[in-house]
Amino acid sequence: MTKIQYPLPGNVINDVVDALKFDDRGLIPAIAQQHDTGEVLMMAWMNADAVRESLTTGRVCYWSRSRNNFWRKGESSGQVQSLKAFRYDCDADTILLEVHQDGVACHTGRRNCFYLEAGNDGVNIIADVVTDPGELYKK
Amino acid sequence: MTKIQYPLPGNVINDVVDALKFDDRGLIPAIAQQHDTGEVLMMAWMNADAVRESLTTGRVCYWSRSRNNFWRKGESSGQVQSLKAFRYDCDADTILLEVHQDGVACHTGRRNCFYLEAGNDGVNIIADVVTDPGELYKK
Repeated sequence: MTKIQYPLPGNVINDVVDALKFDDRGLIPAIAQQHDTGEVLMMAWMNADAVRESLTTGRVCYWSRSRNNFWRKGESSGQVQSLKAFRYDCDADTILLEVHQDGVACHTGRRNCFYLEAGNDGVNIIADVVTDPGELYKK
Repeated sequence: MTKIQYPLPGNVINDVVDALKFDDRGLIPAIAQQHDTGEVLMMAWMNADAVRESLTTGRVCYWSRSRNNFWRKGESSGQVQSLKAFRYDCDADTILLEVHQDGVACHTGRRNCFYLEAGNDGVNIIADVVTDPGELYKK
């Protein structure tokens, strides 16, 4: 696999943004996967400008629906996602980001966000807190 | 990891449906990951009834937005997804399905749907067709 260098050329970024199908809010879901282990870390949303920024900087930038602003992953927590590959699906309506996650992806201090599992005895927490959230978001 | 047996108890299914945050269309995104290799296969949507059915049968059932109906994965193609674990994230607004995919997940006949990758030379197709789509959908 050829290593991808960022920024991507402007014409490639334009082609990607043109190909992607953003929803009626101008958003598209983006799954982040740790590139070497396959761990699914989180899912968040991007708009066209967040896609452009991510493909330019090589650092993952989402769009925060709650803050209605760019969400440069790691900006406040230090837990940056470096982009290894930007993929999208057959319908061009979902993005799969292959990333290297510094530290933890989840705001609870867990490595990934999918730590709740439906089992025969109820819903179980299947991952431990790795980093105290108070440490993540202190100034 | 304890093997999960389906159907889950009714009270667990109720707890899961109550916990999940469905959007204003009554839908929630669900990522399907091959449980043993970590391959991200696809993303689709579920409504509450699709969640209930999946946790009852142990076979993944989505909600098709285009057909406005249940989408029992493999019903027409034979490419069934058996549920190994049903997880959801810290915000309870995304599901991660650990599955065993029979055959191929993608309607193009590729193993997974995320075969388009943005590279320095353009957007590349990074996975081959494994099964002729004509074979998948013939009667």
